[in-house]
Amino acid sequence: MNNSLNVTQKLISSHLLSGEMVSGSEIGLKIDQTLTQDATGTMVMLELEAMGIETAKTELSVQYVDHNLIQADYRNADDHIFLKSAAQRFGLWYSRPGNGVSHPVHMERFGVPGKTLVGSDSHTPAAGGMGMLAIGAGGLDVAFAIAGEPLYIKMPQILGVKLTGQLPDWVSAKDVVLEMLRRYDVKGCRGMIIEYYGPGLKSLSAMDRHVIANMGTEMGATTTVFPSDDAIKRFLRSQEREDDWKEIVPDPEAHYDLTDEVDLSDLEPMIACPSSPGNVVRVKDVAGKPIAQAVVGSSANPGIRDFWVVGEILKEKNVHPDVSLDINPTSRQVVQNLIDTSSFPSLFRSGARFHQAGCMGCIGMGQAPASGKISLRTVPRNFPGRSGTLDDQVYLCSPETAAASALTGKITDPRDLQELYNMEYPRYKYPEREIVNKDMLLAPPKDGRGISLEKGKNIKTFPEFSSLENSRRVPVILKMGDNISTDEILKAGVKVLALRSNIPEISRWAYAVIDENFYDHAKEAQDKFGGHIVVAGENYAQGSSREHAAIAPKYLGQVAVLAKSYARLGWQNLINFGIIPFEFANADDYDHIATGDVMRLDNLVDSFKNNEKHYAVNETKGLTCELKHSLSERQVKMILVGGVINHFRKQ
Amino acid sequence: MNNSLNVTQKLISSHLLSGEMVSGSEIGLKIDQTLTQDATGTMVMLELEAMGIETAKTELSVQYVDHNLIQADYRNADDHIFLKSAAQRFGLWYSRPGNGVSHPVHMERFGVPGKTLVGSDSHTPAAGGMGMLAIGAGGLDVAFAIAGEPLYIKMPQILGVKLTGQLPDWVSAKDVVLEMLRRYDVKGCRGMIIEYYGPGLKSLSAMDRHVIANMGTEMGATTTVFPSDDAIKRFLRSQEREDDWKEIVPDPEAHYDLTDEVDLSDLEPMIACPSSPGNVVRVKDVAGKPIAQAVVGSSANPGIRDFWVVGEILKEKNVHPDVSLDINPTSRQVVQNLIDTSSFPSLFRSGARFHQAGCMGCIGMGQAPASGKISLRTVPRNFPGRSGTLDDQVYLCSPETAAASALTGKITDPRDLQELYNMEYPRYKYPEREIVNKDMLLAPPKDGRGISLEKGKNIKTFPEFSSLENSRRVPVILKMGDNISTDEILKAGVKVLALRSNIPEISRWAYAVIDENFYDHAKEAQDKFGGHIVVAGENYAQGSSREHAAIAPKYLGQVAVLAKSYARLGWQNLINFGIIPFEFANADDYDHIATGDVMRLDNLVDSFKNNEKHYAVNETKGLTCELKHSLSERQVKMILVGGVINHFRKQ
Repeated sequence: MNNSLNVTQKLISSHLLSGEMVSGSEIGLKIDQTLTQDATGTMVMLELEAMGIETAKTELSVQYVDHNLIQADYRNADDHIFLKSAAQRFGLWYSRPGNGVSHPVHMERFGVPGKTLVGSDSHTPAAGGMGMLAIGAGGLDVAFAIAGEPLYIKMPQILGVKLTGQLPDWVSAKDVVLEMLRRYDVKGCRGMIIEYYGPGLKSLSAMDRHVIANMGTEMGATTTVFPSDDAIKRFLRSQEREDDWKEIVPDPEAHYDLTDEVDLSDLEPMIACPSSPGNVVRVKDVAGKPIAQAVVGSSANPGIRDFWVVGEILKEKNVHPDVSLDINPTSRQVVQNLIDTSSFPSLFRSGARFHQAGCMGCIGMGQAPASGKISLRTVPRNFPGRSGTLDDQVYLCSPETAAASALTGKITDPRDLQELYNMEYPRYKYPEREIVNKDMLLAPPKDGRGISLEKGKNIKTFPEFSSLENSRRVPVILKMGDNISTDEILKAGVKVLALRSNIPEISRWAYAVIDENFYDHAKEAQDKFGGHIVVAGENYAQGSSREHAAIAPKYLGQVAVLAKSYARLGWQNLINFGIIPFEFANADDYDHIATGDVMRLDNLVDSFKNNEKHYAVNETKGLTCELKHSLSERQVKMILVGGVINHFRKQ
Repeated sequence: MNNSLNVTQKLISSHLLSGEMVSGSEIGLKIDQTLTQDATGTMVMLELEAMGIETAKTELSVQYVDHNLIQADYRNADDHIFLKSAAQRFGLWYSRPGNGVSHPVHMERFGVPGKTLVGSDSHTPAAGGMGMLAIGAGGLDVAFAIAGEPLYIKMPQILGVKLTGQLPDWVSAKDVVLEMLRRYDVKGCRGMIIEYYGPGLKSLSAMDRHVIANMGTEMGATTTVFPSDDAIKRFLRSQEREDDWKEIVPDPEAHYDLTDEVDLSDLEPMIACPSSPGNVVRVKDVAGKPIAQAVVGSSANPGIRDFWVVGEILKEKNVHPDVSLDINPTSRQVVQNLIDTSSFPSLFRSGARFHQAGCMGCIGMGQAPASGKISLRTVPRNFPGRSGTLDDQVYLCSPETAAASALTGKITDPRDLQELYNMEYPRYKYPEREIVNKDMLLAPPKDGRGISLEKGKNIKTFPEFSSLENSRRVPVILKMGDNISTDEILKAGVKVLALRSNIPEISRWAYAVIDENFYDHAKEAQDKFGGHIVVAGENYAQGSSREHAAIAPKYLGQVAVLAKSYARLGWQNLINFGIIPFEFANADDYDHIATGDVMRLDNLVDSFKNNEKHYAVNETKGLTCELKHSLSERQVKMILVGGVINHFRKQ
């Protein structure tokens, strides 16, 4: 080990507030910038309100509106108005609906090499393409970052990927990250940060790196990091932000925990087959299958080049009659620059359907494919049903592959276009200066404290939770088995998630998958006992990090969960919102509790404070069981005051 | 009365197959062209299949896809694939999704002065702008027109509206038709055809006339007719279709049943207030109210000019931060021509959200406004909730008014822009030649008989209905009151209407508004008695012309309705699908029948054939009541064979 640092280590060490850069140990990071999007942002804003913060403590925080743009009813538009008012109130920038997807807009207008960024969107790592340390997190984590609190993560291992050679014709950045997915599949980089380095970088533009960093998420990586070199300098100059550039490259003797190498010259067009980003094969291995749709765009192919190359391939040709080619531009600025190219009119002429800038096809917001038909998409994910069609057949590929296939009506290796149409590979020349559009970004006012939040009728103030009482006598209203997921505690889906800013309403769906009368039982218990508990087996609250799986039960009066064990994120969320995650000291006690039993939890506060044993007395059965917990001292404080928001407010 | 004819009379007399041109008497018209859109077209195609037609008998029939473009799940895309296969099978042109709204595309590419057009869309009369007789009708009427059958209507009165003067700056075609709506409101032109004539026509382009003809529908007119003059010749020349032009102007001594006059020079910017197209006032009377949205486009403002003028007004300015400006282009060709103007980039630069070409905001397909906030739209209708937001506040106006208001954030008379921004009225100069794009229109094959229909899993073949049996013994499973609407017989709404091509599934919703167990009762009656009857009071099946309010009950075994009286369209639909619409000879008999009574209808066929009295024997009550009907001889034949589709098939 020497004193040389790689880019990741430079970024972390310059923001390290607590802990050590030893993989696996907890570190606290100073956060310079945050981003929130509309689907997660409404709850973040309500949390900021509940925390009573005056103004954002970050250098820069931006609220984007990119997910919910279809506006099938009043709720999307009401959310936009609320988010605008909240951004103004709390000192955030506001990116207006239709201005574009958070990730490319952030890179174009706000990203600064060397800074940290936390975002309530899993593709936040895209900004790693320009030498930032950019991490996706849950809404509450971002709210706390906005409030000036550190972000705590476990120090990841650093995987150094050396790039050599240069991309052949018809092969582009998407194929690089698809090759990585072929090697690592969807879990292979968990607990890692991927850092790219080496001579191959020279041929990758800033937006190419964005493509690769964005989809690092699909391998499970904490984030992806690129150096800030001349390519980033050129990019920032084209954005009229050259002053924001600084060089960040690995020291000559930099070391990586793990290493790998990709020779770009060897790459071929790659494609991820249904229904996992990790099912990667060469395009030519699946060529010839008929397709019904191709979708180009999303944060995984957001740059001008990515659309330009499609227009060039389609020039003077028509989209195949059996195919819908949907163009999903990623930012207003990208469209303005595209309009300036000869490629733009050919998109329209060839038959592409051109949509407003936003997330669209990446997140199932419209343009769902026909049942069972193949849809080629340049988006980062093809999880089953994510397109909006349950039995979808979504393949992930480069814009070149999507365009070639849209032309022929079947999956086509874009290199075949040379022979089929006597076509030369259209190679994009980056302009020295781009058209820059800042006008749809509303700056925060100097002092937003006088601004009131405009809450539409589906947006309700975050409920107040009271602090822990010393003794409780509450019934068990639900007994569950092992591996209960957050999807079962609070189901996903458009209908329920539309209520995410309305805790009273979304609470009606708590545990409805398991017991459709849960809400009634909880209300009854609240009236009669002031609350309830639930019992579960092993690995309670696994799956998605959905905070509402803790907030909704808490709102309905859940005092504690008695389980054999917990999933990490779900356990964290229970503590965050003031529900005690008790474990059975003797797992057998699980068998002696039934739905309907009334339990007494005595000396709760005292036992926590004095670090004494906890007991639950089953009045119905006349039995007592010992309980344990794995809360840290800091977490005990959260539980005592009724959750992390109350804790923050009392500080 | 002289021998001089107005344009309407020329169009009708040249297509008159039966009846006389005397207002109020039934006439049968030869139909040259048809148009169907996707929302109504799937059922039309299923009806064509059920009728067993070989190929369209019209000169030209076109299937458009413009309504259901959001594709929230697989169903829209499945429908598109089905419609393409059906168009090829039955010899129709197919306009691909995103190619545009039926009405402007039809005018650009297919409309021919002097021809008749019937379309399963209420704004079909827009083609009257170019000297066609264009009438909106129900799906089955269009299916019969495609099959070569005449369209039967009651000869309307002809309202001649003389146009004089010319439009002042900042006033455009939309203001003309809004002034008409101010005068006639939403019912004032029922049973009429509106024909415009006079020297004021000179200043109205073909697309301006489209705007005015389109919204004639909102006054209840059967259609609107303009002459085919030099403006139409110029338009067709710009579309590379000058050969399709012929002059059709009123004879010098032409007479109109009713007359009115509009001096264009006197007009001011007009606006229809919520929530009726007839609530028209001057813009300046409501100026100053804050707005949250403006939507430009739709078949009521489809031309290049309508978007161009918005781009010009917004040049070097930004859409107000409180406003979402949604641009809803109407055809791919319009966008291609717009791209060629300096107006186009300014739409993007100014912050407008640019959507794919389709019906969108006109029919609540996305871009719903925020709750209770004002939305200004150039669409033809502002019925309550049609935007997708229940408590919407939609105003209808010109593109000029929409753009001016989007700029200032409040309802603004566009004439004020002169002072506010020192702006001159941007006046569009029509190009000699437009960019023409035919590539997204698939021509029918020479012989489509070998092509099979691609039915997605939500598209089911039209059910077979058997012919009438001579005697039936069936229970009354529902007794209703007066004024039962088709919305109660088969409810509207996205959830149910999504099943419109799936009779077995949509039938589960029959009468569910009145009796949620109706479906179960009908299935039980079908098992036990082979069918059922229902009883109703006065004016049964009023409201919307929804055919499914007859098809679904028929599918569930409905033999007859016993009612005091019927609404005209609902009565017609019952006959079309083979349900006998009986009336009580003595209205008092209504009181002596109850749900559950078993009725015997003897000698049904014999009584119809011999024109004898009908009786229903109430076995449960031991009573007999006399029934009557108002069916014509032709309609009796329909009933005997089980409906109009069976009748056609037997011909």
